Amino acid sequence: MLDDLETRDPERRAADLAAILPEQIARAKAMPGYGQALAEIDPARIVGVKDLATLPVFRKSDLAELQAANAPFGGLSDHISNFSHVFQSPGPVYEPGQIEGDWWRMGRFLRAVGIGRGDILQNCFSYHMTPAGQMVEAAARAVGATVFPAGTGQTELQVQAAHHLGVTAYVGTPDYLKTLLDAAEAAGLRLRITKAAVSGGALFPSLRAGYEAAGIACLQAYATADLGNVAYETVPDQGLIVDEGIVVEVVRPGTGDPVPVGEVGEVVVTTLTPEYPLIRFATGDLSAVLPGVSTCGRTNMRLKGWMGRADQTTKVRGMFVRPEQVAALVARFDGLVRARVVVSRKDEKDEMLVEAEAAGIAASAIESVLPDVLKVRGKVSVVDPGTLPNDGRVIVDERSYD
Amino acid sequence: MLDDLETRDPERRAADLAAILPEQIARAKAMPGYGQALAEIDPARIVGVKDLATLPVFRKSDLAELQAANAPFGGLSDHISNFSHVFQSPGPVYEPGQIEGDWWRMGRFLRAVGIGRGDILQNCFSYHMTPAGQMVEAAARAVGATVFPAGTGQTELQVQAAHHLGVTAYVGTPDYLKTLLDAAEAAGLRLRITKAAVSGGALFPSLRAGYEAAGIACLQAYATADLGNVAYETVPDQGLIVDEGIVVEVVRPGTGDPVPVGEVGEVVVTTLTPEYPLIRFATGDLSAVLPGVSTCGRTNMRLKGWMGRADQTTKVRGMFVRPEQVAALVARFDGLVRARVVVSRKDEKDEMLVEAEAAGIAASAIESVLPDVLKVRGKVSVVDPGTLPNDGRVIVDERSYD
Repeated sequence: MLDDLETRDPERRAADLAAILPEQIARAKAMPGYGQALAEIDPARIVGVKDLATLPVFRKSDLAELQAANAPFGGLSDHISNFSHVFQSPGPVYEPGQIEGDWWRMGRFLRAVGIGRGDILQNCFSYHMTPAGQMVEAAARAVGATVFPAGTGQTELQVQAAHHLGVTAYVGTPDYLKTLLDAAEAAGLRLRITKAAVSGGALFPSLRAGYEAAGIACLQAYATADLGNVAYETVPDQGLIVDEGIVVEVVRPGTGDPVPVGEVGEVVVTTLTPEYPLIRFATGDLSAVLPGVSTCGRTNMRLKGWMGRADQTTKVRGMFVRPEQVAALVARFDGLVRARVVVSRKDEKDEMLVEAEAAGIAASAIESVLPDVLKVRGKVSVVDPGTLPNDGRVIVDERSYD
Repeated sequence: MLDDLETRDPERRAADLAAILPEQIARAKAMPGYGQALAEIDPARIVGVKDLATLPVFRKSDLAELQAANAPFGGLSDHISNFSHVFQSPGPVYEPGQIEGDWWRMGRFLRAVGIGRGDILQNCFSYHMTPAGQMVEAAARAVGATVFPAGTGQTELQVQAAHHLGVTAYVGTPDYLKTLLDAAEAAGLRLRITKAAVSGGALFPSLRAGYEAAGIACLQAYATADLGNVAYETVPDQGLIVDEGIVVEVVRPGTGDPVPVGEVGEVVVTTLTPEYPLIRFATGDLSAVLPGVSTCGRTNMRLKGWMGRADQTTKVRGMFVRPEQVAALVARFDGLVRARVVVSRKDEKDEMLVEAEAAGIAASAIESVLPDVLKVRGKVSVVDPGTLPNDGRVIVDERSYD
């Protein structure tokens, strides 16, 4: 473990959060970017994850717009000069960063992979524009590893360096390590990499199995440019443990309503970072809470990992249909539990079917409100509660675009 | 100023050096890479720059070979795990680095440019493989500036970011700032850059004049991947002040012999960095000491700036002729002050002329030893002492390769 926060008794974790969260909400409330959203909120009342659920969610997709109106950080953070770094992601979206104190909290992940003093770490994330490179830099300092800042590309030089430097640990995307290993084999160069900390893409089981066969222990983390580390593996295939510096909720896409444990929904994160308080930041990523606790001794909640994108907005007969509208439809009827919009093509026309998990509601009753709520006419098929797939999808587009 | 080392009385600087230098020589002597070269040296006897001149020079061109034999640092530094970073330059040559304490000493340069807290610094040096990016990172921390790690390329995104972030300071090559300014004008985006710290190439006077006309104060530094900051401008066109963390000599190319003040020669640097003591490291770069002191209040020796490459090795009729051989020729004759080899083509054959600054020596006497010393026959032209150009060139290749 990097610190004893990871093994806190869950009640202790909740008590610690109860002390920190009101301060963080108060800080956010004082920032102009949150002005209206949190105006009516009493920070002292927000002491736990259940209270967070009463606050509005803040969508990542709104960030570029908010920042354009109030550059660079949309009034959601301290002044730019109070940060050591600022980064640009596509959008453009700007993210602040700090050189001090493992600001992105990736150190816990590197430690879980077993990386520490004596390791030579090849950092294959980019340092340019994006915070990825600095996130790993901060983590490497936290665990005491020596960094070779390789960046992306230049594979032949990377292999040469890994060989000459005796690199022991790889950090980068899941796929690029295979590129390095293949290039080393082609060049006849022996590498000493035995640890891999990967992020930024799907780690397919066959890929991990291949690394393990090559003597490389590989674990993955889920992190974003805005939030830093969100959750990290400590044991393969046992879920990702939520980082201690944030609070994670999983909500029904298009809403701020937490789903039950095990159900797929959108990952919503609240950061505890004082200079940049993101409150109920909806990532657009899908995941689910994994029941139980890890065998590794860490006690925090676990996520199943990245399960796709929650942003399922589509167009039906020229009209946008958004997850928020599907949520509004569900809210119209007592007894309507969940709904899923399925869009298809027939006779060169868009067709919309709404599958509704409901008890005691006629399909025709729901159909009658579709033009009002979804702005599009369609058919409704009522199904028994609990029968829709648990995949977090509320809008399914079955049209072929080939 | 960044610290009061820069304004030390020269006698105080010499006294401080006398305390530090023997320790540094002792550290180097203890490292296996220096084993033979310093075996007979008594570190306690090396207390100043004049004493350094008695030690052998260590050529940058030998570094790749030494490192290949003893990866990664050729036995010239502490263990790799005692460094936070390691870098790769073409060769390959590996350089260590530290995150702590402005290890490359570029902070003094940024301060001289007026960069400090409140500045948003766009770092247009690469962070990948090379230490350039981290050198600026360390310097920015030393002066308190916020860094946007832009790296190289992606000019449109860089301009967009400079505009949105209100970037005030540019750090990068002399030329790329013009690329950014032109791209900003083409995009109709206003930039707020008023300070530019440039390195890594020649800063042509017309380019600096153009920046000044655009309201941007531009100063240059001479730095290398191995040594960090060597010398930096504080006032335009008044030379570059030698950094306080190193000792600079200017020697006749091919030798370790210091040239008189004002004469062009090869820059030889001794670092005072404990973990990586480079002793009389011959850079291969040409410069000259500028007499007098700066008007800015800093008291250290000044260099004229980068004046070309000292590595003038060439081939004449299939045989290598090296600056070291020209130096050996000069050493053969009392009264032979300087010599310059001029290689040309006549009738599809290489011709070699040796211009010799000498008094009382017949050209024929010198010609007779050329096959022995230079391994090539040639003609000698004796000229009066002080008449050869002061440009640091001991081998001039006039052959056209078009």
